[in-house]
Amino acid sequence: MRFLIPLISSSITSGHSRITSRLLSAHLTKPQLSTLHPFFNYQTPSMAASEESLRKALAEKQSAVEAHGNAVRALKAAKATKQEIDAAIEALNSLKLEKSSIEKQLQAAVSGSDGDGALSREAFRQAAVNTLERRLFYIPSFKIYRGVAGLYDYGPPGCAVKSNVLAFWRQHFVLEENMLEVDCPCVTPEVVLKASGHVDKFTDLMVKDEKTGTCYRADHLLKDFCNEKLQKDLTISAEKAAELKHVLATLDDLSAEALGAKIKEYGITAPDTKNPLSDPYPFNLMFQTSIGPSGLSPGYMRPETAQGIFVNFKDLYYYNGNKLPFAAAQIGQAFRNEISPRQGLLRVREFTLAEIEHFVDPEDKSHPKYSQVVDLEFLMFPRDEQMSGQSAKKIRLGDAVSKGTVNNETLGYFIGRVYLFLTRLGIDKDRLRFRQHLANEMAHYAADCWDAEIECSYGWIECVGIADRSAYDLCAHSDKSGVPLVAAEKFSEPREVEKLVIAPVKKELGLAFKGSQKNVVEALEAMNEKEALEMKAALESKGEVEFYVCTLGKNVPIKKNMVSISKEKKKEHQRVFTPSVIEPSFGIGRIIYCLFEHSFYTRPSKAGDEQLNVFRFPPLVAPIKCTVFPLVQNQQYEDIAKVISKSLTTAGISHKIDITGTSIGKRYARTDELGVPFAITVDSTKDVTIRERDSKLQVRVGVEEAALVVKSVTDGLRTWEDVWEKYPHHTSGSADD
Amino acid sequence: MRFLIPLISSSITSGHSRITSRLLSAHLTKPQLSTLHPFFNYQTPSMAASEESLRKALAEKQSAVEAHGNAVRALKAAKATKQEIDAAIEALNSLKLEKSSIEKQLQAAVSGSDGDGALSREAFRQAAVNTLERRLFYIPSFKIYRGVAGLYDYGPPGCAVKSNVLAFWRQHFVLEENMLEVDCPCVTPEVVLKASGHVDKFTDLMVKDEKTGTCYRADHLLKDFCNEKLQKDLTISAEKAAELKHVLATLDDLSAEALGAKIKEYGITAPDTKNPLSDPYPFNLMFQTSIGPSGLSPGYMRPETAQGIFVNFKDLYYYNGNKLPFAAAQIGQAFRNEISPRQGLLRVREFTLAEIEHFVDPEDKSHPKYSQVVDLEFLMFPRDEQMSGQSAKKIRLGDAVSKGTVNNETLGYFIGRVYLFLTRLGIDKDRLRFRQHLANEMAHYAADCWDAEIECSYGWIECVGIADRSAYDLCAHSDKSGVPLVAAEKFSEPREVEKLVIAPVKKELGLAFKGSQKNVVEALEAMNEKEALEMKAALESKGEVEFYVCTLGKNVPIKKNMVSISKEKKKEHQRVFTPSVIEPSFGIGRIIYCLFEHSFYTRPSKAGDEQLNVFRFPPLVAPIKCTVFPLVQNQQYEDIAKVISKSLTTAGISHKIDITGTSIGKRYARTDELGVPFAITVDSTKDVTIRERDSKLQVRVGVEEAALVVKSVTDGLRTWEDVWEKYPHHTSGSADD
Repeated sequence: MRFLIPLISSSITSGHSRITSRLLSAHLTKPQLSTLHPFFNYQTPSMAASEESLRKALAEKQSAVEAHGNAVRALKAAKATKQEIDAAIEALNSLKLEKSSIEKQLQAAVSGSDGDGALSREAFRQAAVNTLERRLFYIPSFKIYRGVAGLYDYGPPGCAVKSNVLAFWRQHFVLEENMLEVDCPCVTPEVVLKASGHVDKFTDLMVKDEKTGTCYRADHLLKDFCNEKLQKDLTISAEKAAELKHVLATLDDLSAEALGAKIKEYGITAPDTKNPLSDPYPFNLMFQTSIGPSGLSPGYMRPETAQGIFVNFKDLYYYNGNKLPFAAAQIGQAFRNEISPRQGLLRVREFTLAEIEHFVDPEDKSHPKYSQVVDLEFLMFPRDEQMSGQSAKKIRLGDAVSKGTVNNETLGYFIGRVYLFLTRLGIDKDRLRFRQHLANEMAHYAADCWDAEIECSYGWIECVGIADRSAYDLCAHSDKSGVPLVAAEKFSEPREVEKLVIAPVKKELGLAFKGSQKNVVEALEAMNEKEALEMKAALESKGEVEFYVCTLGKNVPIKKNMVSISKEKKKEHQRVFTPSVIEPSFGIGRIIYCLFEHSFYTRPSKAGDEQLNVFRFPPLVAPIKCTVFPLVQNQQYEDIAKVISKSLTTAGISHKIDITGTSIGKRYARTDELGVPFAITVDSTKDVTIRERDSKLQVRVGVEEAALVVKSVTDGLRTWEDVWEKYPHHTSGSADD
Repeated sequence: MRFLIPLISSSITSGHSRITSRLLSAHLTKPQLSTLHPFFNYQTPSMAASEESLRKALAEKQSAVEAHGNAVRALKAAKATKQEIDAAIEALNSLKLEKSSIEKQLQAAVSGSDGDGALSREAFRQAAVNTLERRLFYIPSFKIYRGVAGLYDYGPPGCAVKSNVLAFWRQHFVLEENMLEVDCPCVTPEVVLKASGHVDKFTDLMVKDEKTGTCYRADHLLKDFCNEKLQKDLTISAEKAAELKHVLATLDDLSAEALGAKIKEYGITAPDTKNPLSDPYPFNLMFQTSIGPSGLSPGYMRPETAQGIFVNFKDLYYYNGNKLPFAAAQIGQAFRNEISPRQGLLRVREFTLAEIEHFVDPEDKSHPKYSQVVDLEFLMFPRDEQMSGQSAKKIRLGDAVSKGTVNNETLGYFIGRVYLFLTRLGIDKDRLRFRQHLANEMAHYAADCWDAEIECSYGWIECVGIADRSAYDLCAHSDKSGVPLVAAEKFSEPREVEKLVIAPVKKELGLAFKGSQKNVVEALEAMNEKEALEMKAALESKGEVEFYVCTLGKNVPIKKNMVSISKEKKKEHQRVFTPSVIEPSFGIGRIIYCLFEHSFYTRPSKAGDEQLNVFRFPPLVAPIKCTVFPLVQNQQYEDIAKVISKSLTTAGISHKIDITGTSIGKRYARTDELGVPFAITVDSTKDVTIRERDSKLQVRVGVEEAALVVKSVTDGLRTWEDVWEKYPHHTSGSADD
């Protein structure tokens, strides 16, 4: 019998339910500053040091002010001369001025180097989110009924971006890697999620307002308290500040008891009412329901798509011709009943996951296409660098694998493929890093785990988890279902193997131990190879040994005639084993939100009187590839616009005609705000103008060629530069603002 | 105040939850027989008549047998001569033989003309389903845990077919019609589904085994009883048979009481235990859950995707530039907690819907692209033909609209587009019909409703519902949310309109009615135009009228000085109205299952010793477009296979290499069974052989051209016939079975 401790994988606990705490951990690093994103102001290590000395200086100055205040009062009480008192007051005021100056420096230090880092980050996010919501990229669900926290709709452009991202995911992973895609239901019976460990362990700690019953996430309250204290209360000592920072860094590791103790110690109350809070207790994050009419079959909305793949392993292995390695993939909805969702699209109660389970022989984790990614170089943040306070740095993937930083080739291959996937979508490679899980973040069975983290205005966000989960999941379901989820390696010719044989002599054992015989037999049979060989040696030399039987809780004497231990040679035709699973798991909504932020920028209008919003989506993900504008309202131009529209439809290019009489500049601004990469302006009956969104450059192309030019660029067959090279440039300002 | 009766749309009640009853309704018709589908044997009207006369003849013969039996017994009792008795027995035996012959004829009549119709239908389905499950097109979910009724996984080929169907749906509807696609969550708060009527009315009637508690659908039990009786009990009278058939035809309309009475009358018991059954009571088909940790916010998994669109109407209308008509679309999961799911993929607890809500001015339901579908001709089954016992016939869509059979152009346009969509997927046009809802099937508010029904081994299955739901849904959500979901038509210049003004004179009314004044004022203001003008006329002629105030429950006398009624002219700048909704709603899983059946056939192997399975999917939906086979295991051929595979990947053609040493015939059979349309066999280093699945014809093509040839045919740029014309034919038998 095997004992499996159903610990939850790190992809669950630190996945979508624990990310915020990591945002404020001690391991934030300073990435390259991007000129387009002015809100990134980071504390360098020297600044962190100056914060500490400033807190000390402030405390000293505060004491000095108090001492001088007492002195002034003493002088007054002693009826000192006006001159003496005035001099003392002047000194006091000067001390107060110095204190106030230190306060300002400290305020700047805790909120960013120039004092408005957090502010500009907020402002950037606000501008992006305003545009996203106004143009219906996404909107709170059920708005007319005042919505539901953590549920969002994708409106038309957001839905198109999502469908483009998923289509590219299918192309990049499923098609190019010949994966077996499956599609399983969201409704899942309890037995499956009991086996996976979710029913028992997929929880967050919650506290309740003892009077109103309102629920809060315990770690969020503690985190908010610490952050507030650190940022707004300048009077706390350097020691207190260090303590609060330590709490923030270890938040994820706190037990319910420890969390409750801290909440009591700091006197934290319910944010809305200031009422006292209950002790923290676990709340299961799965949406529960009941399958069928009887009320006797509990079920849950799946919290991840992976389990649907694991339970199908046997069929999929057969479908693959009983060969390893192979990968199965699934795109689908997952559900987590968050206690108090925040951070917009980053923490929601329903989201789309795209997951891959790559099944591999644990004794051979090489990958046939590994050489294709070996020379990729990007930001990696190995465990050791995190522990020693360094920052992420560019590492050649091949080096990370060969040095053993990344556990194996297959894991490395997927890290490389994820890097290519994200950057091709338009994620800024300088704000993308692969962070290795620390030892305490990883489940005990995991061999290695890396998160693709993308930096946005909320900090570094885990968007893809890439874990080598070893044999855990298949073993768990084998155990619970009784169906062996194993693979076999057939030997080309039978192999001779040595096998340990432990044969208790039941008659002798029965005579010696009577009613306890069964316990002793089981304990003998349960010995591992090392233990058995030690016993064999001891019996041969001494004739008797003391042997601990855990089910009896005591030692018993084992004699030579009671057990035979030997090694026998056997012929085997195959090796049967549980495959390892390497799991890249993509949070599609998080990737899309980060993509929105990385693509968003503003630029002044031509008149310079306003800032215009632009999303620089690559054609691959742009919601609409092209707009068609008749320059003026005119039947001839409109007819040509319709002809071009028809050829775009035939070519499969999503587009929109805008025949409103609005100025061409306004129409460009409207489509820039949707991230449409190309606009075709019909300004003659022979040639039309094609404008590229980011450069605002324009070329002249014949009417019948226009759709094909746009198609060739959006399909990636040529670049805008090629087009710019080939076609005459548009020079008149009439079609631009 | 408006009163809305929250009746459920027919797309809900007769949609996925009531389809089976329709399968046995009186309106089945005889379609063209397909040689490939030998199981279609239908009862013609003359046969139905003969069934009735056979039942009568059988009953008469039965009486005759009984009478003769009595006579024989009487003869024996009267000690008649042996000769007399023998003669009587001989006559009795001859009567019994005649009875048995009539029984056989009747048996044949009730189960199909040649007596094995139902059998071959069953056998066909079994062959198709065996292949589908064995090749993992779909499989019962959570199989290793013994599954859950009504939940299925799509395995790799099924998942690919589904994703191709959805991609084509997006192309055919969203892209070509410029629809606004949205993506809303499955988790839905109660208030939304309360407004839509689902919380109160989305139910099926259930009965419980009174001892074990096992639940059954009440109508299913009654239906099964009637069918069983009709098919297996040949002794029932023609009158009884007619009664049972009437019950089957009206099953959908039976109330809980009527259903319970029938169950009692027929003595129906629990099928598994024969225990007595409870009275029928409604069971809500939605999966219920709780949103957030408080337990105070009930929610449901959405039973359809449409509500997510309706609640967003205001934003979408704005996004569309405040212009009508426009359509919004959504693809997503929907959930129905069926009481006892059966019929495989046709009735499941979780399924993918693709829904369109086309919003249109109720005063103008024309469609700009209507002329593109006007000449389509296909099987339609209008209400009148169903009522008069006729069958579906080919009708030109334009005629159906112009004669008013189809309510309006927009509805007609969508019927045409649905026809094109389904037939392009590979649905057999002779087994597809558009059936109009009968008056009693339609919700009271619906203007018209047509179902696209596809015939498969289970009968005619509703796969797409196309309904003009008028303003019902938007009104329901306006009312409940308080947010007006309306559109406005701006007049190019203000229009003068006459408006009725009812002005109660409160002072006089107060003097006359004191405490009841308010009731009288409200009743006066609530008069419609006709009532008000009648009162005005009466007051002018008589000076006083009796007026019924319903909130007082009595008449009161109204005098001329108590109310002023007049018509005033006003200038209006716009007309504000609630748009009508035309809703095509696609059950994707049902379409796919019917497509599987329509595509499946068997043909003998070359040796003639077995039947091989083939799916004749068009390239558009085929799960894999192409396989690549090296003819023999050989490095050179394998290298070329890899080169071709790479160019197929670049061209975006999903494919598979099979380098096993299996015979080429077996490899063809394997891919035919997956419906792969083309196979490239590498049998030289210069040219390769391309084989088409259904014709088994083969051409020779250069290695570098192979991928492009396959791409051009799968993309629909040319046909296989074009290829066959252009390239040399393969003549050797080596690459065929």
